[in-house]
Amino acid sequence: MLTLYHSPRTRSSRIIRLIDELDIWPEVDTRIVSITHRDGSGGHDSKNPHPEGKVPLLVHDGIEIWESNAIILYLTDLFPKAGMGPVVGDPQRGRYLSWLAWYGNVVEPVIVFGAAGLSHPVLDVTFRGVPEMTARLAQALEEAPFLMGDRFTAADLLLVSPFTWFPEAAPDHPAIKSWIERCEAQPSAQRTAEFDTKHLETESAA
Amino acid sequence: MLTLYHSPRTRSSRIIRLIDELDIWPEVDTRIVSITHRDGSGGHDSKNPHPEGKVPLLVHDGIEIWESNAIILYLTDLFPKAGMGPVVGDPQRGRYLSWLAWYGNVVEPVIVFGAAGLSHPVLDVTFRGVPEMTARLAQALEEAPFLMGDRFTAADLLLVSPFTWFPEAAPDHPAIKSWIERCEAQPSAQRTAEFDTKHLETESAA
Repeated sequence: MLTLYHSPRTRSSRIIRLIDELDIWPEVDTRIVSITHRDGSGGHDSKNPHPEGKVPLLVHDGIEIWESNAIILYLTDLFPKAGMGPVVGDPQRGRYLSWLAWYGNVVEPVIVFGAAGLSHPVLDVTFRGVPEMTARLAQALEEAPFLMGDRFTAADLLLVSPFTWFPEAAPDHPAIKSWIERCEAQPSAQRTAEFDTKHLETESAA
Repeated sequence: MLTLYHSPRTRSSRIIRLIDELDIWPEVDTRIVSITHRDGSGGHDSKNPHPEGKVPLLVHDGIEIWESNAIILYLTDLFPKAGMGPVVGDPQRGRYLSWLAWYGNVVEPVIVFGAAGLSHPVLDVTFRGVPEMTARLAQALEEAPFLMGDRFTAADLLLVSPFTWFPEAAPDHPAIKSWIERCEAQPSAQRTAEFDTKHLETESAA
C-alpha cells in the first residue's frame, strides 16, 4: 500500500501530478495535511509522520520515502508502463537520474537564493548560478522539445515546477519559455490544479 | 565503456571510493582533470566535458551522467553484486533513494551555508538547518550501525563525506561520531586517500 502525505499547492503537488500521469489513483491513499508556510502560517501537522513536518512524504509498506526527487524516481520505477522515466538498463537512464538530482542539488538552491536576495562567493563556487542553470536547460531544449527527448517525462514535471510557481524565476530564453508552455499544456497540469483547489476548499471548510 | 572525470581530493573522490568498493577498476577509464578551487586556483580544464567544469562527470557509452548522487545510484544499479545499495524491487530501495537525494537537497546546502556563515529565514524554511540534519542522522544511527542497517552502503559513503572533509561540520553526537569512525575504518577510505595522493603528485609534476 502507498500512502502520500500532501498539502495542496506545495512541493507535493508535483507528486499529485505524477500520480495523475501514471494513472495510479486507486493505488495511492492520499492524506491532506497542513505544513508551515513561508509566511509562518500553518505548522507541523500531527497527522504527518515526516520528522520535520514537510511534504511530500510517501510511505510504501511501512517504509518512508522522503524528498520529491527520490519519490518521483521511486514511483516511475514502480510503475514503468506509463513511460514517465527510463528504467534501469535503458541507455537514457543516467541522463534521467542526473536531471532529477540536479534539480535538488542545484536548481532549487539557486532559485531560493535568488528569491531571498542572497549572494556569496561560496554559493557561486558550489552551486553556480542562474546563467549556468539557464545554459544547461537551453542546451537540452534547443535540441529536443523535452528534457529527455520527444516526450514529456517526470524530469520535465519536476524541472518545470519552480517556473510555474514563480514565473518571475523563469529564464528569459525562447527555448525554455516554449518548453514551459508545452509542459503546462499537458492535461495533468490542469487536473492537478483542480485537485488542489478542491482540497484547499475542503481544508478551509474544516 | 565508463569514463570518469576526476580531480583528486574533491567531491569526485567519493566516486573513486565507490569504484574501489564495487571492485570495478578494470571497467572504468579514470581521467584526472583540474577544477576551479575555492581559493580561485585551477580553472575549467578543457579535457573535462562537464559544461561548468565540475567533477565528477561519468560518461557511459556516450551518455553524460552528472551530480554525485546520480552517479552513485547509477553505478550501484549497474554493479549490484557488491551490495552497495538496494536495487529496484528491494523493500529498502525507497529509503536508499531518499538518503542519496536528501544529501544533495539538504545536507550539502546546510553545510555550505554554515561554512559561509549565511543565515536567512527563507533558508531555514526551505532547507531547515543543522539541528534537523543531526536529528535525522542520529535517529537512524541510534537504531543501526549504518544508515541502511547492518552494512556499509553507498548511502554511508556519500553522507559521511562532508564530515570527513570538514570534521568541524560533524555533529557532536555520540552515535554520529562513532558512525563516522566506522565508515572511515572501511579499507576503501585509506585506498582512496592513497589514490588521490598519488594522482596529486602526478598532477603537480605535470
